[in-house]
Amino acid sequence: MAFGWIDEQALVRRRAGLVRTLRPRPADSPLLDLASNDYLGLARHPEVTEGAARAARAWGAGATGSRLVTGTTELHAELERELADFCGFEAALVFSSGYAANLAAVTALAPHGSLVVSDAGNHASLIDGCRLARGTTQVVGHADPDAVRKALATHEGPAVAVSDTVFSVDGDAAPLAALAQVCRAYGAGLVVDDAHGLGVLGEGGRGAAREAGLAGADDVVVTVTLSKSLGSQGGAVLGPARVIEHLVNAARTFIFDTGLAPAAAGGALAALTLLRREPERAARARAVAAELHARLTAEGLSAVRPDAAVVSVRAPSPEGAVRWAADCRAAGLAVGCFRPPSVPDGISRLRLTARADLSGVQIERAVRVIGETRP
Amino acid sequence: MAFGWIDEQALVRRRAGLVRTLRPRPADSPLLDLASNDYLGLARHPEVTEGAARAARAWGAGATGSRLVTGTTELHAELERELADFCGFEAALVFSSGYAANLAAVTALAPHGSLVVSDAGNHASLIDGCRLARGTTQVVGHADPDAVRKALATHEGPAVAVSDTVFSVDGDAAPLAALAQVCRAYGAGLVVDDAHGLGVLGEGGRGAAREAGLAGADDVVVTVTLSKSLGSQGGAVLGPARVIEHLVNAARTFIFDTGLAPAAAGGALAALTLLRREPERAARARAVAAELHARLTAEGLSAVRPDAAVVSVRAPSPEGAVRWAADCRAAGLAVGCFRPPSVPDGISRLRLTARADLSGVQIERAVRVIGETRP
Repeated sequence: MAFGWIDEQALVRRRAGLVRTLRPRPADSPLLDLASNDYLGLARHPEVTEGAARAARAWGAGATGSRLVTGTTELHAELERELADFCGFEAALVFSSGYAANLAAVTALAPHGSLVVSDAGNHASLIDGCRLARGTTQVVGHADPDAVRKALATHEGPAVAVSDTVFSVDGDAAPLAALAQVCRAYGAGLVVDDAHGLGVLGEGGRGAAREAGLAGADDVVVTVTLSKSLGSQGGAVLGPARVIEHLVNAARTFIFDTGLAPAAAGGALAALTLLRREPERAARARAVAAELHARLTAEGLSAVRPDAAVVSVRAPSPEGAVRWAADCRAAGLAVGCFRPPSVPDGISRLRLTARADLSGVQIERAVRVIGETRP
Repeated sequence: MAFGWIDEQALVRRRAGLVRTLRPRPADSPLLDLASNDYLGLARHPEVTEGAARAARAWGAGATGSRLVTGTTELHAELERELADFCGFEAALVFSSGYAANLAAVTALAPHGSLVVSDAGNHASLIDGCRLARGTTQVVGHADPDAVRKALATHEGPAVAVSDTVFSVDGDAAPLAALAQVCRAYGAGLVVDDAHGLGVLGEGGRGAAREAGLAGADDVVVTVTLSKSLGSQGGAVLGPARVIEHLVNAARTFIFDTGLAPAAAGGALAALTLLRREPERAARARAVAAELHARLTAEGLSAVRPDAAVVSVRAPSPEGAVRWAADCRAAGLAVGCFRPPSVPDGISRLRLTARADLSGVQIERAVRVIGETRP
């Protein structure tokens, strides 16, 4: 029977305690949220939701077509100018998701005969980009510029190194400046996914590339999401104008996808405006993460020192992690629970996200609940 | 230098007259739109834009996380129930784009050792799904159930046939009933992309699977977009509950992507409500397409008889197609212009879309402009 093999896989998953189920949340959840990627607390900020609502009314609920047909509005163009300007790049191109932006950047910049050097800890979307690219991918050890150097040294012709700037699972940062130096030595491009850096790292949240002195460099391409610090939906690629023009002509997830909905563009634009006016939100998110880490460590928990706003706490097992997260939830606290196969190293953990708008009392409560429910 | 090869490709494109540039449109374009995929004229319908605006205000500008963490709201669950019910399937799963839905469906349903039989005219997102899938892909001739049969006959183990229901470029329909029959004979699943069928085909716009008597079948999986007839953004997979549960656990573009923005979900929900109340919109879109085709053919133009709401008109060359579309635009008419490499057969064409809300006068004007500007 068609799809019969699915039942076998479901049984294996059930036996291993790895079944995932969706849990729809109400509009006004009573849970304290340390699970979302809403790092700056902007997703429900009235200026941002009003920006989204206004755009839907002015421009329509959808973009009505692919970007090269009818799906580019003046609102998209404004968002692209604003993103490029904010992050310090020559040009930007907006996509319907960060996933689509990463597929576009990697596939379009890794043509036949090229080499892609990919960090072992990279996000699924970068990995899928490598798998779709016509170039050859070499996976190297996590956050290891020397391994990148060795890989680049073996290759003649176009090459790119690809890395997250902040790794989603453990919240650690890539050694960007060293990676850029290695890439330059070999004439290779550097493509980095700043999904978890935009809004959190760099002056006023201008991102990891800005922090590393790489903003606007002609050999650096940055992808971002509009769905984390900017509280909306979508993704973008930032880089030299020639790279962006190339993507317009060559990236399949750009050419063959409907344009981003105006409401998502309007929400992201409002968030950027707000972040320009209140740049201290970025530093506050980092400070909350540092405080969470310090307090959890003081409780004797094993947490990775955060380089941005993600705090990762080790759990003893997948089942232990699931139970821990469930116990937190029962005590009114939402935390992320990452376990196989969503983690590259097979280690399960609670994933906490610092939000700029968490109060001292909320941080204290979160740490207390996590400590009291530890397995 | 990094990315130096891009300039060479750009030069080749320029010389071939194949450079694509974005043309941002204003909120109130004076052009008569026969280019968008807004088949039912709902993208700017006040009920739909209000549904989007209301959702942004109630739920936030973004979903704040991946669907398995914080990105599933009760609004997403409602949209999934409503989509499944409308189209006659057991369950549905919503994605941030139709592209992501197609990547998910194909990759998750084509495991290692399986066979994917893919129509040569399939959309880029299905093709990329095949390339990402662990199974082996065999591309077969366009709309050819017998070729699918031959491919399935060569294989032991899980298999799926993958096809658009309505092919985007020429607007012709796949032989769904025959494909399903062939798949059943070999115990294979059938995965079809109804991006251009939902809202246009089947009773009240319930889609191509409904029209072919395949809605709710346990061996059929349908993907749809929320960004065409429903005037919003996003995509969905519809099918048996066990398939949807499998996708929740196995589809990377579901697990590792931020959930669809509430505004897009709210817009699509409002469009579904409207379509239930005004089912005649679907038949009207088809009638407009038939009228466009009849009148263009009467003018001596070479147009493909439309099976849904897309009318494809042959152009003599890529440059001829570009000039023709530009002349239409100068005369106040927006039409799509498809040319290499976006067309599978290398033939350039104008692509016209019938909208349910086009008036007789507008149809007459469109046909006159297209006829007068023909190269």
